[in-house]
Formats: sequence, structure tokens, C-alpha cells
Amino acid sequence: MNILYDERVDGALPDVDKQALLQALQTRLPNLQVLHQREELKPYECDGLSAYRTTPMLVVLPRHIEEVQGVLRVCHELHVPVVARGAGTGLSGGALPLEKGVLLVMARFNNILHIDPAARTARVQPGVRNLAISQAAAPFGLYYAPDPSSQIACSIGGNVAENAGGVHCLKYGLTVHNVLKVDILTVDGEHLNLGSNALDAPGFDLLALFTGSEGLLGVITEVTVKLLPKPQTAKVLLAAFDSVEKAGRAVGDIIAAGIIPGGLEMMDNLAIRAAEDFIHAGYPVDAQAILLCELDGVEADVSDDCERVRQVLQQAGAIEVRQARDEAERVRFWAGRKNAFPAVGRLSPDYYCMDGTIPRRELPGVLHAIAELSKEYGLRVANVFHAGDGNMHPLILFDANQPGELDRAEALGGKILELCVKVGGSITGEHGVGREKINQMCAQFNSDELTLFHAVKTAFDPGGLLNPGKNIPTLHRCAEFGAMHIHGGQLPFPELERF
Amino acid sequence: MNILYDERVDGALPDVDKQALLQALQTRLPNLQVLHQREELKPYECDGLSAYRTTPMLVVLPRHIEEVQGVLRVCHELHVPVVARGAGTGLSGGALPLEKGVLLVMARFNNILHIDPAARTARVQPGVRNLAISQAAAPFGLYYAPDPSSQIACSIGGNVAENAGGVHCLKYGLTVHNVLKVDILTVDGEHLNLGSNALDAPGFDLLALFTGSEGLLGVITEVTVKLLPKPQTAKVLLAAFDSVEKAGRAVGDIIAAGIIPGGLEMMDNLAIRAAEDFIHAGYPVDAQAILLCELDGVEADVSDDCERVRQVLQQAGAIEVRQARDEAERVRFWAGRKNAFPAVGRLSPDYYCMDGTIPRRELPGVLHAIAELSKEYGLRVANVFHAGDGNMHPLILFDANQPGELDRAEALGGKILELCVKVGGSITGEHGVGREKINQMCAQFNSDELTLFHAVKTAFDPGGLLNPGKNIPTLHRCAEFGAMHIHGGQLPFPELERF
Repeated sequence: MNILYDERVDGALPDVDKQALLQALQTRLPNLQVLHQREELKPYECDGLSAYRTTPMLVVLPRHIEEVQGVLRVCHELHVPVVARGAGTGLSGGALPLEKGVLLVMARFNNILHIDPAARTARVQPGVRNLAISQAAAPFGLYYAPDPSSQIACSIGGNVAENAGGVHCLKYGLTVHNVLKVDILTVDGEHLNLGSNALDAPGFDLLALFTGSEGLLGVITEVTVKLLPKPQTAKVLLAAFDSVEKAGRAVGDIIAAGIIPGGLEMMDNLAIRAAEDFIHAGYPVDAQAILLCELDGVEADVSDDCERVRQVLQQAGAIEVRQARDEAERVRFWAGRKNAFPAVGRLSPDYYCMDGTIPRRELPGVLHAIAELSKEYGLRVANVFHAGDGNMHPLILFDANQPGELDRAEALGGKILELCVKVGGSITGEHGVGREKINQMCAQFNSDELTLFHAVKTAFDPGGLLNPGKNIPTLHRCAEFGAMHIHGGQLPFPELERF
Repeated sequence: MNILYDERVDGALPDVDKQALLQALQTRLPNLQVLHQREELKPYECDGLSAYRTTPMLVVLPRHIEEVQGVLRVCHELHVPVVARGAGTGLSGGALPLEKGVLLVMARFNNILHIDPAARTARVQPGVRNLAISQAAAPFGLYYAPDPSSQIACSIGGNVAENAGGVHCLKYGLTVHNVLKVDILTVDGEHLNLGSNALDAPGFDLLALFTGSEGLLGVITEVTVKLLPKPQTAKVLLAAFDSVEKAGRAVGDIIAAGIIPGGLEMMDNLAIRAAEDFIHAGYPVDAQAILLCELDGVEADVSDDCERVRQVLQQAGAIEVRQARDEAERVRFWAGRKNAFPAVGRLSPDYYCMDGTIPRRELPGVLHAIAELSKEYGLRVANVFHAGDGNMHPLILFDANQPGELDRAEALGGKILELCVKVGGSITGEHGVGREKINQMCAQFNSDELTLFHAVKTAFDPGGLLNPGKNIPTLHRCAEFGAMHIHGGQLPFPELERF
């Protein structure tokens, strides 16, 4: 069974009269750019999860909020589904278009509206790139903390929709912790402000509810983010271990010692060798695992913490602990990590990047279990991930041209995610559910919980027109997929018992 | 018009057959303690907002989750509203009982279930007192950060329901930022887990939605909180100013300098004198305002930051900056602040404590405007508040025995909250909406926003049985109260134009 791609969602949508829709849009919004020829639509057929492709019925590229509002109203009247999209860098297919729907591209809303250094906030349009906010804030000594690896390209609207993370989220939080206010348009084009510029907003916390809702509740038209002062200094330690389990335990030890690193990343031998071949970062290629631990803050504090972390690492059995001697070496250490995905990509024609979280204390056991699963499925798995917050990114190496390998990779990926759920974790850390993990949601949640999700969705979008088929599976889909929910210690998957 | 007390909510509820309900509870839950005699019910007629009193129809004091579940199921079947209550220390009447409803007291769920020092979490029952968590975590060098002034008595379930704050929330966040997982029972007694032990949970963020929902969405049965390592050291600076506006500006300057104090509190002359008379904290009684700024962390870092804050304060025009010479003086400085409310209570037979937030940059102007309003209404106002996060607590002094003074105090309080909304703030910082501020919600939100709140409420509680009449006003109520919503710069209240 191919659990990755599933056309039923699109198939189940009612048919749309494309010509009537096109005419309504062109009549009501004469200045709106609408793409409707097959060759124009092709570039929009996928987001960052390129294994999933669907040609959208129409693509609209509005320039003004009024045009977005107009598109939503027309689609609402004609009952046409709408998928909003930012830069299209998402890794879970959250912006995958619909054959019977409009793709609403918000990329042109790319203005930074206001930086307030005193309040330490930036008010930006949704198409502004993540890194562009930090660049604009730099003259004030400020930056925007969440830093997905795609930060050079990904846009803040997508970051909010997916509750994006990054290397520094261990210390500085996910997108939800760094956003003050989001302006949205509802499915019928009403303007709403969620959150406020003040400490707290009364009523239900719709801002947090909206963050990470993957385009199911509304379309983002403006975002106000918090900015942080740039740390005075940052130092990085590299620790080598002769087993991944020891490295996994060291992660918990650092946190238990009361230290919160700016970043705490782990790579296993396969990832180390790949990165070293590609970047020449100076990694110890014989180590079974390395940890990169960055400490940031004021000078005295950071020096003090470096000493404490070094002691913890040595007690945890590190065979070597090195501190980057200078800024150049620090940058090199990180370059290896940041290029680990493309580096692993050189090892194999294809790889499948997973994204699950687990409680930190489960790291040693889960790393061991992944190694066992890797043997069982006959596919190599490289581990390179945000160890500090238990956010794993196993990369499953395969060759799509070898018959059966894609299916095996998908099946192995599914097992790894179910394992994450079993140990108290979740099926996504920072990439979102999107289309990719919609079946795994049946493992994460029971039918009461899913019913509540649908009720919340209905509160915002009674007709189900916003990004249907993503994020929240129907109960029907879960029933078809099988009663996967792991509940009260009852394991429907006996093969997981050994962990 | 008396905007504080409003009996219409109870009046609008359908009648309940008290005997039938009592019998159903006693039959189905023979071990459940049920109070139903008038004299037994009396102690439960109010929470911390004692100006509002209603005798509940019945009080239940369950000891086991199954009893809570049973109560909810019986009430659901008989269509009886339920108000859940923790320690009853809330200041906005969120746990005010209903004449036609059951008061569900969760105080007996007071066990700390598990402290996990490695994961830095505590799993506790909802009736556990806030301070008891920190006490239990102390042997591990850990503590629970949010610290409402009532922390010796208030319980964590109430903290979650109200999204409670405290002195240290500027640096460490509100309750929502310090909670990992909440187990709830729905209105019909279904068990749900919101959040997870891992970094992030997929699907909609129902944990954040639930936090601060004031008992409208479910009943809390268990809470997992994050614990933090106790800071190595804490130092406090006291700065005196000859005007409240200058002190207000200094608050913004400290934050803009990139420093996040553990606490940053402000008191005006009336509060300073009251506290000094009561506690002898060593405050400068001639100052128009003082700031207390606590810096915590590792020794070197804190010393460094103290110097920087001192410079900022002097540049902002402080007439005196003192650092507490030793721990005894530091504790004395805080004792004055922490006892400021009772100290102000000695100045006047009654006072009315407001709770609004504003963007920090608005502090000087809003403090000025409050002084003007104080003159206009002929009532003294003492200001003592969490300045760092713009969370104001104006204390309006009045004598309820003087005809008209209560009405004037309420009217003045309403004006202050509307002013908070007007400058981009909110009508509550940490005390919640409850019954007290339900009318001001009409000023904070427009009818589209309120409609969305009701739709979300309906997703959890279609029959509206959980804590009706709190937190979210009906559109009908807002229409009766007057079209207060301040929108798009259009001010329905011309008397506010001068600010």
C-alpha cells in the first residue's frame, strides 16, 4: 500500500465549472493576475514535498488585500476550495494544490511594514521571507529567532501556517512563541485580528489556535512578530561518541544540568561522513555520533556554561570534546550540520526526510530501534536532528528506480512515526501534517479528538473550503486506513512490541 | 448604570428541578459529597472577586475522576449548567456560582503525581497549589515559573483556566508558555489529552486554546507543567523618579536596551507611601514613582546587566538608583511591592483592582490619562503593576458606604479599560474576563470576532452548559450594553478623544 499519495481527497470534491469561476474572477477582479493555461500552472504543482504533485485548476496572484478578499468571496459563492501558498518550501505538502481548487499565492505580499525597535516587534506581510525580517532588524541589533533551514526562501505566512521551528527553537521557541498578532481573512472574506500588541488577549487564544493550522482556518494577510536582541557571543562545542545511545543520553544530561543551549544538534556516523565528504567541516569521521552544542548570551555566562557542558559531556562518555577555536571554525562546524541534508543526498538517488518528536529521555531507545528497523527494511537511515528538543529527522535512503524501494521507504517511515507516537511523542515536530502525514494522524489521535478538531474547523469554515484534505483526516479515512490509534498501552502493531 | 453586577445571565437560564438533580447525583454517585443545605452552600457564594455573590444550587466535592465524570454526565443529561472551581482565588468572578447550576469543586485533587527532573516536568492534579509545585521541585533545583501573587493559595487548574501571570512572566511567560499537557473531561464526560510531552503536537493547538478559556470548554483533571532551573543569583535595583511619565518611559528604555529583567515593577507615590507606612521597605516616599528591576541568572551575567540597567535608568532621568545591598534588603524591597495591595487597602474602606494591558510605549500617556480621569471622577487611584509587560493594575479607592461612590468607581474602572483597548491593549492581563469584564469584551471585540468565539465554544460545548455567562458575551448583551467596540479609529466615546 502506498501510504504517501492519496488521490481520494481530490476525487471526493464536487466538480467545479472552471470557465464560470474564471469568468467570475476576471469580471469581479479585472486587475487580478489569474493563471489558467496548463503550462502556466505547471510550476505550481507541488511545494517542497515534490513527491506529491497536482496541477491546480487555477492560480491567482493577488497584489492587494482587496483582491484576496475578492477571490475568497467568489470562491465562497461558487463553493470552490482554496489552497493558500507562500514560498512553497513546506515539506509536508501543506500547499499541495487541488485539481478542483484555486491556488492562492501570497508571494507578492512581501513588504516589511514597520519595525519598532522599542517594542521589539516587526509588522510584515505574509510573503516576507523569514531571513529578510532578521536582515531588516539587524541595524537595531535585533533578529527574529525561529530559523527553519529554508529561512533564506520560506515566507513568514507559511511559517505561521506550519508553526515552523529550527535549530534555535530549543531556547527561543517555535513560531507560536514568537508571534504577537496575525491578521486574517476568513473563508468568506471577513477581516479578523488574532492576538494583540499587548501581553495577553482576552477571550479564547485564537492566535495560538490559528498558528500551525495549515491553512484550514483562514488566509494570513499580516503578521506581527517579536524580535530579540542579538546575543553578544556564541560558542560551539563538538562532542564525539562511540555510540548513538550515549550521545542520546548526553542530550538529556545537558538539559537536566539546567543549561539551555542556543542549539543542540546530533548527527550519526552516516550523516557525519556524508557531511565531512561534502563540506570538510573537520568532523571526526570514526565517531558513531557527534553532538553540536551552541551556547549564546553574554561573554561571561557563555564561558561558564561551556565549562559545565564540557564536564557533562565527558561524564556522559564523550571520547572527544572540542570547542571551536574561532568564529571561522564555529561557522564551519555549523556548515556541516546545515548542509547535512544535501550531503546525505549525495549518498543515494533519493531520500525521504521524516520529522517526528519524542521526549528527550527516549532518544537512546528510539535511535536503537531505528537502527533495528533500518536493518529489517534493508534501507540505510541517516540521523541528523534537533536533539535538544527531541525533534528527529531520520533520512531514509532509497532508490526510486529500484522496484519496491519507494514502498519500503514509505513503510519504514510510517513505522518510525508510529514509534514516535508510542513513546509519547508526535508525528511532526516542525514540518506539519499537510497531505504527507494525514494518515498518521489516525495513529496520533482517537476519534473523539479528531471529532473535536473537525468541530473547531467547522467553527471557522463551515463549508470546508479552506485547504481540504490536509492536516485533519476524516474519521472515514482513519477507518479505511485501519484502527491505528495507539491507546492505553494497547498496541495494534505487535511488531513494535520489542521496543 | 451598574456595569459590574448583572443578574440577567442566571435569570435567562432554564429552571432546574433541584430535587431531581440531587436524587440523580446521590443515586448514581453514592460516595460523592454533595452540599445542598443553604448554610453549607454559603461559603461557596463567591471567589476572589467578593463584590459578586450568588448562592449555588448545589456544591459537589468529588474525590475521583470517575466522580467528576459522573457529575458531568448527570448534568449533561439533565441540562444543568456546571461551574468548575479550584481554590476560588480568581479576581474576575470566573468561578462565580449559578443559582441554577452545580458548583464543581476540584480542591480535593491535590496530589503531585510525578516530578521528572530529567525532562524538567511535573505532572499534578488540578487542585495542587501553585507554590506547592515549586516546593516539591526545589530538591531538584527546579521551580515552576509563573507566580501569581496568590500563589500560596491558588491552584494550578485555576491558573490554566485563567492563563495566570505574575511578577516573573515578563521573562518566563504566562501559564500557557509553561504548560505541556492538560487532561480534560468534556461537557459529556469524555476524557481528552491536550498537548503532549514532546516539543509540539500536530493538529490544531487545542492546549493553547484551552488555556485561559475560563471553564467554558471542559474540566481540567490533570496538568503537566514545565519546570525551570532556579537562577544562580538575583539582584534588584530600585530607581526613583520625579514623574510617573519618566518612570514609564524608563521601562521601555530597559527593554529596548535588550535586557529582559526577571521582574520589572512600578509603583506610584500613593502606592509607595502606603507600602512604606505598612512594610517599612525603605522606599523613597517623596518620589512620584519607583521602579523595581530584578535581574536573575548566573553571577557574572547579572552583575553586567545591573550596570547596564543602572545606566539606562540614569539616562532616563532617575533621581536615585539603589541596588539592594544584600539578600535581606532585596527581600524587603519585594515585600513592599508584594504587600502593596493590602497596604493601599489601609488608605480607604474599599478599592477596586483593575487589570488591563497596554503596549509598553503607551505607559507614560496612559498613566497621565489615568491621573486626569482620577481628578474627573474625584476618586484616588494608586498604580502598582507589572510595568515590564505593560500589565497595569490601577487600584481605585472608594467608600461603598458613601452613596454613589461604588458607581463612580465602576464607571472610572470601565473608562480605564476602554482606554487600554484604545491604545492597542486589552481589558485583562492576567485576571481573566470572568463575570467582571464580560461587558468590556464588547469593547475589545467586534461581532465577527465574538461570533467566532461562540462557534469555538459550540465546538466543545454545544449545549452551553459549562460556565455560562462568563468570558464571552452574547451579541445580544453587547447590543444592550451599547455599541462600545472601538474600531478603525472611530471612537464611540467622544470623552476619550483627549488622550
